[in-house]
Amino acid sequence: MKEQNHLFLDVLNGKKVDRPPVWMMRQAGRYLPEYMELRRKYDFFTRVETPELAAEITIQPIDIIKPDAAILFSDILVIPKAMGMDVQLVDKVGPFFPKTIENKQDVDNLNTDEAPERLQHVYDAIKITQEKLDGRVPLIGFAGAPWTVFCYMIEGKGSKNFAKAKTFCYQHPELAESVLDKVTDVTISYLKNKVAAGAQAIQIFDSWASLLNQKDYAKYSQKYIDRITEAISPLAPVIIYLRGNPFAYANYKDSSCSAIGVDWGISPTIAKQLVGDKKVIQGNFDPIKLLMPIDELKKETISMLDEFGTQKYVANLGHGILPNIPVDHAKAFVDTVKSYSYK
Amino acid sequence: MKEQNHLFLDVLNGKKVDRPPVWMMRQAGRYLPEYMELRRKYDFFTRVETPELAAEITIQPIDIIKPDAAILFSDILVIPKAMGMDVQLVDKVGPFFPKTIENKQDVDNLNTDEAPERLQHVYDAIKITQEKLDGRVPLIGFAGAPWTVFCYMIEGKGSKNFAKAKTFCYQHPELAESVLDKVTDVTISYLKNKVAAGAQAIQIFDSWASLLNQKDYAKYSQKYIDRITEAISPLAPVIIYLRGNPFAYANYKDSSCSAIGVDWGISPTIAKQLVGDKKVIQGNFDPIKLLMPIDELKKETISMLDEFGTQKYVANLGHGILPNIPVDHAKAFVDTVKSYSYK
Repeated sequence: MKEQNHLFLDVLNGKKVDRPPVWMMRQAGRYLPEYMELRRKYDFFTRVETPELAAEITIQPIDIIKPDAAILFSDILVIPKAMGMDVQLVDKVGPFFPKTIENKQDVDNLNTDEAPERLQHVYDAIKITQEKLDGRVPLIGFAGAPWTVFCYMIEGKGSKNFAKAKTFCYQHPELAESVLDKVTDVTISYLKNKVAAGAQAIQIFDSWASLLNQKDYAKYSQKYIDRITEAISPLAPVIIYLRGNPFAYANYKDSSCSAIGVDWGISPTIAKQLVGDKKVIQGNFDPIKLLMPIDELKKETISMLDEFGTQKYVANLGHGILPNIPVDHAKAFVDTVKSYSYK
Repeated sequence: MKEQNHLFLDVLNGKKVDRPPVWMMRQAGRYLPEYMELRRKYDFFTRVETPELAAEITIQPIDIIKPDAAILFSDILVIPKAMGMDVQLVDKVGPFFPKTIENKQDVDNLNTDEAPERLQHVYDAIKITQEKLDGRVPLIGFAGAPWTVFCYMIEGKGSKNFAKAKTFCYQHPELAESVLDKVTDVTISYLKNKVAAGAQAIQIFDSWASLLNQKDYAKYSQKYIDRITEAISPLAPVIIYLRGNPFAYANYKDSSCSAIGVDWGISPTIAKQLVGDKKVIQGNFDPIKLLMPIDELKKETISMLDEFGTQKYVANLGHGILPNIPVDHAKAFVDTVKSYSYK
């Protein structure tokens, strides 16, 4: 495979670069008219589970927005689905589990042995994507952090405070740990297979890190992320994205992960202090700021790049891009980073 | 008025005490069967706007749970309502504004002159409450931070990310500042009247502090809270509660506020570092942890008290109590603090 743009992997591998690489969380998504066209034709899990469609969707932003990395179109909830849970995506509601995990029997019923191979469609999508990318940019694979996936498995749907999921932890800590262990086991096999199929970096999304205080974060989330990172980082660089809970960044100082993804809520200066200088930082433009007039958006982007400073940095949003962002605004963000220079 | 329990005010006034005072955010609320009975009879704004009802609801937890302070039953959205906006409370949806602020005309239409006197029912409720309390515990009055109130005025309802409210700031910063200024003006008059009527401390709820990064927080929220604090703190001690955005605590180091209210997401040790030793800290038990078995709940409460250490501290939840908390669990939390001793 001829590699034309390896800026993103260079940074993760500690090489010196001339400018920061850039990609956007959810860059394959609803703000792109080309995606909306496929969305009208195929339902969510058809798009996720049909390798040709997932590959096509993954490539769309590479052709249109031209970031420095692709991320395979998929969903963090493919894991509980492969473990035998019924997962639906209800329009305007989001993910929905008709039957959630409530007791030991439900936990015992979770399938861990066959789950990784049930995700063959993902590995196939990676192979097709890599053929189509033909070395233009590296391909990222991802999984949810076990804690974040657990939240949905217990709560059954999105929530402001995931009170049901947290109550489950506080009332049945051993059962909660058993679910988290199982999700971790499946996630490790899944990510190993993804790397084997051609994913060149792995991002772990802990989108609900914000739900736990620091002590509970170590117990219910970090512990499992650490297991995944140990297993995967010898195979591909690992990025750990946390939404909220910036004080937990320091917990990863001795982790073998390559980068910490930070959300838009934290100033670059504080993020750098908390992450330390051993890890790459990825982030953290507020996606809502992509709605600013383009001139303002460019100024804000440059101000962020200046504050993060040089090297050990991947430009990104601090959360997924929103459906109502005009394509030319998304492009202005990417272009601003691409024309920035460290020299 | 014979003051029997002034522990809460003592701490805010910098006096040495034998144990931390305790109250709970939303302690007059849906977890109390006595409140639910009134809720079935009277709609939300009837409960808020009928002084006798508001006073009765305020007193309920004092009789049942026996915390060290009462907080007047009301709502942060009485301010936009008094400014002429139609505010509804829709069951299972929450606050709803049929018509939001969208343009300069809408901003110009906001009534600032008559708004404070339209809230006479609140001042009357305070007087009745103080008569009924008869010095048993001090009475807290509150208002939303202008930023948090603004979020609802622009968004029109609760939201995960208040994208509409933030977009309004980023696209029309001057108009946003004009709304924030008007809300601040009305809030200052309102809080002065509350203190004159008998509120002995004031809490400002910045429940959506989490929506802004540090730079934007200073611009869109802190600036207005500072104006309120300057006006009110000579009259009564001011507590500023922030949900999220712990790095903003330090912004209040030179504020004349007496206390910073911190949410459950932050460890007591880090909260103390960020707030500094000049201010009282209030918080921060995770309300969802009130669902733990009572023995565990007591252990967690004591662990929190130990970590906050001695003096300059008011025990509270890190967010409002939830409707599904059993009354005996809420009482166990309050009782655990009340039997704790600094000696």
